[in-house]
Amino acid sequence: MESSHINPKLRRQKASIDIEALFESIQQGNISALSQAITLVESTAGKDSAFAKAILGKALPYSGDSFRLGITGVPGVGKSTFIESLGSTLIESGRKVAVLAIDPSSSITRGSILGDKTRMEELVKSEKAFIRPSPAGTTLGGVARKTREAIVLCEAAGFDFIIIETVGVGQSETAVHSMTDFFLLLKLAGAGDDLQGIKRGIMEMADMIVINKADGENQTAAKHAKREFQNALHLLPEKEHGWSTKVLTASGLNHLGIEEVYQKITEFQNYTNESGSFENRRNNQELFWLHQTIEDQLKSEFYNRPEIQLLIEKLERQVLEKKITAFEAAERLLKS
Amino acid sequence: MESSHINPKLRRQKASIDIEALFESIQQGNISALSQAITLVESTAGKDSAFAKAILGKALPYSGDSFRLGITGVPGVGKSTFIESLGSTLIESGRKVAVLAIDPSSSITRGSILGDKTRMEELVKSEKAFIRPSPAGTTLGGVARKTREAIVLCEAAGFDFIIIETVGVGQSETAVHSMTDFFLLLKLAGAGDDLQGIKRGIMEMADMIVINKADGENQTAAKHAKREFQNALHLLPEKEHGWSTKVLTASGLNHLGIEEVYQKITEFQNYTNESGSFENRRNNQELFWLHQTIEDQLKSEFYNRPEIQLLIEKLERQVLEKKITAFEAAERLLKS
Repeated sequence: MESSHINPKLRRQKASIDIEALFESIQQGNISALSQAITLVESTAGKDSAFAKAILGKALPYSGDSFRLGITGVPGVGKSTFIESLGSTLIESGRKVAVLAIDPSSSITRGSILGDKTRMEELVKSEKAFIRPSPAGTTLGGVARKTREAIVLCEAAGFDFIIIETVGVGQSETAVHSMTDFFLLLKLAGAGDDLQGIKRGIMEMADMIVINKADGENQTAAKHAKREFQNALHLLPEKEHGWSTKVLTASGLNHLGIEEVYQKITEFQNYTNESGSFENRRNNQELFWLHQTIEDQLKSEFYNRPEIQLLIEKLERQVLEKKITAFEAAERLLKS
Repeated sequence: MESSHINPKLRRQKASIDIEALFESIQQGNISALSQAITLVESTAGKDSAFAKAILGKALPYSGDSFRLGITGVPGVGKSTFIESLGSTLIESGRKVAVLAIDPSSSITRGSILGDKTRMEELVKSEKAFIRPSPAGTTLGGVARKTREAIVLCEAAGFDFIIIETVGVGQSETAVHSMTDFFLLLKLAGAGDDLQGIKRGIMEMADMIVINKADGENQTAAKHAKREFQNALHLLPEKEHGWSTKVLTASGLNHLGIEEVYQKITEFQNYTNESGSFENRRNNQELFWLHQTIEDQLKSEFYNRPEIQLLIEKLERQVLEKKITAFEAAERLLKS
């Protein structure tokens, strides 16, 4: 798609990209320009990094004016169909929807989620939607950074509803939670995807739980699961921002309950805007990523030093053999 | 107490401590010598640090052979009375009990918990018990380190049951959880200390929940609370080591249910010893503290640099004003 629609002018200038022209195209909502800019940001080639910085610098002042929705759920829960269904509701309400993905498990195969774009046929066809698969990356931190930067570019291109999808491998849900305004957990009734199998901490992150595939014979089980989740949520401590997690049933396939989902999201948006917790959460997220990046970098620089790599295994062994304390081992590593 | 019993030989040598003699006294179970060694380890005076290292180095090979129990609960839950009651059961069973505390809130006033030793009258009197208030410290990391080192010394002195108490300020419960074999959460029925008010993540850390003050008119409420906690625990994912969190009622004051608490702890000890998860948890804890210390140190060195302190506020502001991205701010700080 990107290659056939791409502006030939932008393409020719690959060796020396005209950032002004590219940014102008992005602001006009040109999807190809947006795609090209995201590719620049995702690029690991050294020559692209100055362009990436320049385009981000231009986009940044125009970013932030969107609602960022995180969605997670195990494979098979119906994420694509749900997002397609929610997306069409959003577009009907006049929103412009960008769908991005974080999937660290696909760093080798590239794009296991959203890779098959035909899974969101309607959204792909719409001019008011933009779909981008998971960026490649060797670390979750790297993937998360690229996704955060893609959000900035999408917002500068006028997308005012950003959906970040993840399959929830490792810490990816925490990463998505740390870059979105609202975190939605998609579940199935029964089928092993019930309360018992829920990942630690995930329920505390969720602002909404949707029992998907609540259609046909599944409806009774879905209602039961909804009650179960509601009971479980009562046992959790209240969130700082005072919003109590909502549990809904829906069918992405049959477009049932989707309007209610959107309505509750709007309620949340109004509620947190009024209380100031919306802006608060955004600011905290910015500072979180600033400090997280610093700490990741400090750690990786430290542990990648050849002298540390030589020493660390030996010291770890000595600690486990009670020859030195963990604290002394740490001191020796830090001194070397 | 320490000063009246202290070996005059040890005292005279304060300027140049005879580590051999001190360690010999510790191994003979001399409480005064143990106290002096812990004081050395807690000391922030530079001249003590070599002695602290030396005594720890001697004690380390003799450490580890104990059961380490973490206890937390809000003020008023009856921790001291519960520990006194459990401690007497332990001593009757032939154990030697050391009670240490982590309370970062007391870093200024020093020793708000366990500070008033008369609160554990019986334990204080027993020769088979050792009670030590919270060490002073400016950071939780510092307090935790001192407590971990005190554990080593207590174990070398022959204490085979170590209780670490905390009031649960900030991250102190996580710290205690990371240095103990078993984590016990003390609760009250009703009185605002019920399921609703429970701190995030704490239930997932607990190996046992004890509803304390289950005596007299309180018994019905305690039974009800017990059922509530049991239901809530069913909703949590199973622990890796396969032990399901037990909920008991007890009365520290009237010494009710304390034998059952001890029995369950023994069950846990046998169970995790057989499965190998006991040793596994210990090893993981050692490596956790090794890496945690490194990371804390890297961070504090970085953030304490004058050039970083000058720059960071400015860059944080620029991030919040959307002048630069969080990632670029991090890069600039790392480069400087």
